[in-house]
Amino acid sequence: MNLTHLDENNKPKMVDVSTKDDTLREATASGVIRVSKEAFKAVEENSTKKGPVLQTAVIASIQGAKQTSSLIPMCHPLLLTSIKVDIEELPKIYGYRLYVTVKLRGKTGVEMEALTGVSTGLLTIYDMLKAIDKSMVIENIQLEKKSGGKSGDFRRK
Amino acid sequence: MNLTHLDENNKPKMVDVSTKDDTLREATASGVIRVSKEAFKAVEENSTKKGPVLQTAVIASIQGAKQTSSLIPMCHPLLLTSIKVDIEELPKIYGYRLYVTVKLRGKTGVEMEALTGVSTGLLTIYDMLKAIDKSMVIENIQLEKKSGGKSGDFRRK
Amino acid sequence: MNLTHLDENNKPKMVDVSTKDDTLREATASGVIRVSKEAFKAVEENSTKKGPVLQTAVIASIQGAKQTSSLIPMCHPLLLTSIKVDIEELPKIYGYRLYVTVKLRGKTGVEMEALTGVSTGLLTIYDMLKAIDKSMVIENIQLEKKSGGKSGDFRRK
Amino acid sequence: MNLTHLDENNKPKMVDVSTKDDTLREATASGVIRVSKEAFKAVEENSTKKGPVLQTAVIASIQGAKQTSSLIPMCHPLLLTSIKVDIEELPKIYGYRLYVTVKLRGKTGVEMEALTGVSTGLLTIYDMLKAIDKSMVIENIQLEKKSGGKSGDFRRK
Amino acid sequence: MNLTHLDENNKPKMVDVSTKDDTLREATASGVIRVSKEAFKAVEENSTKKGPVLQTAVIASIQGAKQTSSLIPMCHPLLLTSIKVDIEELPKIYGYRLYVTVKLRGKTGVEMEALTGVSTGLLTIYDMLKAIDKSMVIENIQLEKKSGGKSGDFRRK
Amino acid sequence: MNLTHLDENNKPKMVDVSTKDDTLREATASGVIRVSKEAFKAVEENSTKKGPVLQTAVIASIQGAKQTSSLIPMCHPLLLTSIKVDIEELPKIYGYRLYVTVKLRGKTGVEMEALTGVSTGLLTIYDMLKAIDKSMVIENIQLEKKSGGKSGDFRRK
Repeated sequence: MNLTHLDENNKPKMVDVSTKDDTLREATASGVIRVSKEAFKAVEENSTKKGPVLQTAVIASIQGAKQTSSLIPMCHPLLLTSIKVDIEELPKIYGYRLYVTVKLRGKTGVEMEALTGVSTGLLTIYDMLKAIDKSMVIENIQLEKKSGGKSGDFRRK
Repeated sequence: MNLTHLDENNKPKMVDVSTKDDTLREATASGVIRVSKEAFKAVEENSTKKGPVLQTAVIASIQGAKQTSSLIPMCHPLLLTSIKVDIEELPKIYGYRLYVTVKLRGKTGVEMEALTGVSTGLLTIYDMLKAIDKSMVIENIQLEKKSGGKSGDFRRK
Repeated sequence: MNLTHLDENNKPKMVDVSTKDDTLREATASGVIRVSKEAFKAVEENSTKKGPVLQTAVIASIQGAKQTSSLIPMCHPLLLTSIKVDIEELPKIYGYRLYVTVKLRGKTGVEMEALTGVSTGLLTIYDMLKAIDKSMVIENIQLEKKSGGKSGDFRRK
Repeated sequence: MNLTHLDENNKPKMVDVSTKDDTLREATASGVIRVSKEAFKAVEENSTKKGPVLQTAVIASIQGAKQTSSLIPMCHPLLLTSIKVDIEELPKIYGYRLYVTVKLRGKTGVEMEALTGVSTGLLTIYDMLKAIDKSMVIENIQLEKKSGGKSGDFRRK
Repeated sequence: MNLTHLDENNKPKMVDVSTKDDTLREATASGVIRVSKEAFKAVEENSTKKGPVLQTAVIASIQGAKQTSSLIPMCHPLLLTSIKVDIEELPKIYGYRLYVTVKLRGKTGVEMEALTGVSTGLLTIYDMLKAIDKSMVIENIQLEKKSGGKSGDFRRK
Repeated sequence: MNLTHLDENNKPKMVDVSTKDDTLREATASGVIRVSKEAFKAVEENSTKKGPVLQTAVIASIQGAKQTSSLIPMCHPLLLTSIKVDIEELPKIYGYRLYVTVKLRGKTGVEMEALTGVSTGLLTIYDMLKAIDKSMVIENIQLEKKSGGKSGDFRRK
């Protein structure tokens, strides 16, 4: 099993994608934040309040996805061509599931960008609700699907 | 229940901490990444390999924590005075638990910085193992404890 | 008349505030964007649409204000303790006036942060409406008031 | 009228340009800062002083244009291939007009980059003169012309 | 002799590379830090200690190279496709030589990215050893070789 | 000899300065770039040309110093209160020596900020002259003096 990000002396490196083709690549990641009933109600009870909390998360996700190569040391800078965020309300468990889909026409995949977008959006919801609930948990940050590139497509079962 | 980050017109705002005292504040957050057996073995089997993968995550956590106020829209810029990362290997479930502890002498707490550090470190492990396993899951990103400031201490049960 | 940002050889410098006192400082800036009737109607006609356009501007203003010392070469890094954005709709001229108020307890004023916040928010509205109207004009970016610090208070007449 | 930056649920999104062609695109924006007679004279009276104030603005414009996708939430990261700044002195009104021209061979236009460059440069002039005059006004930030891309050319009348 | 980064009025500009071809470009830079015997021994004597000091430098080099266009005002944003760092221990002079090799398929060379990576890595070693030795010197930061692009290849003699 | 930036498990950490006093701290660093006679003449022969090349370096130094905690992984974010750059022309060896002096009232020293400022400024000169000379060498980046803080003052002999 190959640790692609280590060189022959086990030092981290940015993987060489210089000669890879520019192809259309797409990735969707998701993640969940579970909050207290009180925090969920504070967001939901007033439709004007749901707006700003979840919209701030959407915007933070998009801006976070664009910062991926600054945050994750071995990630390549990439010209993301599309970022879309969806939020599913989970009233039964008091939580939110955030989806981020990223596209690119380029030399390497965008799963880290989708995952970083999810992570940033969930942290933003945490931040905006933390005065009500400090025991919230972020969970199930994961790749949902991925297409394009030589390594083949992926779809979570 | 008060959404502290919304103003009287339900617009997001950065909470006013201008008149709060500078006190010593500390927060510890944690989170887990579950990886495949193969990925876990690739990291573990050779002690020189564990070094660079986990060290890169440590460094990314520290740098990520410092970027919190750029990433999370309503977070205040803060003069973090200490960031420490610990990684617990979880051989039974094939995973890693990352702890980030942040300290500050200032006007507001550092839980978001600890959580952002955890999140960035786990994403970095994901990035370095994703050629082996695309189904890894990041979970249980949560505040462990928090002290300092007027809102009182928190310790996860 | 003294150009405080130039040294004895007319080179730019960051002004030395090392020995200034930490005092409470506050500044409010404003600015206007004039848009076409069509663009204004597209935002207004549906209350759910006004939300995301103007909320995105609010969030961009807050994040922009925090980036001031990276953007404006001679600005000091500052620990902003409050950022608040207001948007006034100007239906008679088809436009929006954005106000940003920034606070700090520190050694130098925050007028550049308020102005940078205004500027970033107005550019964000421009960006979100530019598919409808390319002739929009941003105008009257100016300091409204300022308090704290040795140089005295300012209030625009 | 279509708000291109909102998705079907009125959430902000980064517009999908994945399948657009790479074409040569160019945009020029301009803006004005009006300063007091005293501030204008302080800059002008000594040719060595005009240098550093206006040169700092030029450099800030170029660096600001490169930060557009970090500052304006829905902007795409872009590989700008040329940034040129011109400053016109306006002795009759005591002010400066700044022009920024940006070029790109890519999938989307560069008007936001030109406008952000103008805005950053004008704010920099403000910063360097604010010890003399706090009532300066930034005005008429606008697109002058734009070429390339499917939406057609624009030239301000 | 042409100062390519100045325009017809001697103002700095970002050189126009809009019509240059995308070709494979590569550059290697190097630099040395000389440290005290004590600092060198502190790093070397324990193989587990050499790991984190030099690995942190490797990671900082890679992340620094990616920040080149933010740091060096006239540099173009570039889609680096490979960054590799090597560190040569210099036990005779008590020092380290750091090599950074950067690749790109694009319109302009990557020598500044290689040099910025070297510089950031050496500063990181300095930072981690400065409690032991404040008289360390960084020297011989230079381009080793460069290929690709119209200006021809370079190889240091 | 203590590697202060490593924890008990030899992992990098940001040193804990939470309980240190805020004192006035100052550091000056310097460094040299040697260029070809041709490059030196291109800058010198026309006084208007020296302006933009060296001024761009000054501004890049100041902005680079402010980015230190983003670039150097274990550096603390700091509220720099003064940054001043001086450039000494070295006509005998065809080169420039750059000095950066940084001040702070805070909990830890600013030598890394001064060194990072020097490094960024020298790289900027390199960038602006590299079309003329690719064999330039940056050398002798070093701390000149340092005061404030518990570890005592330093002055290079």
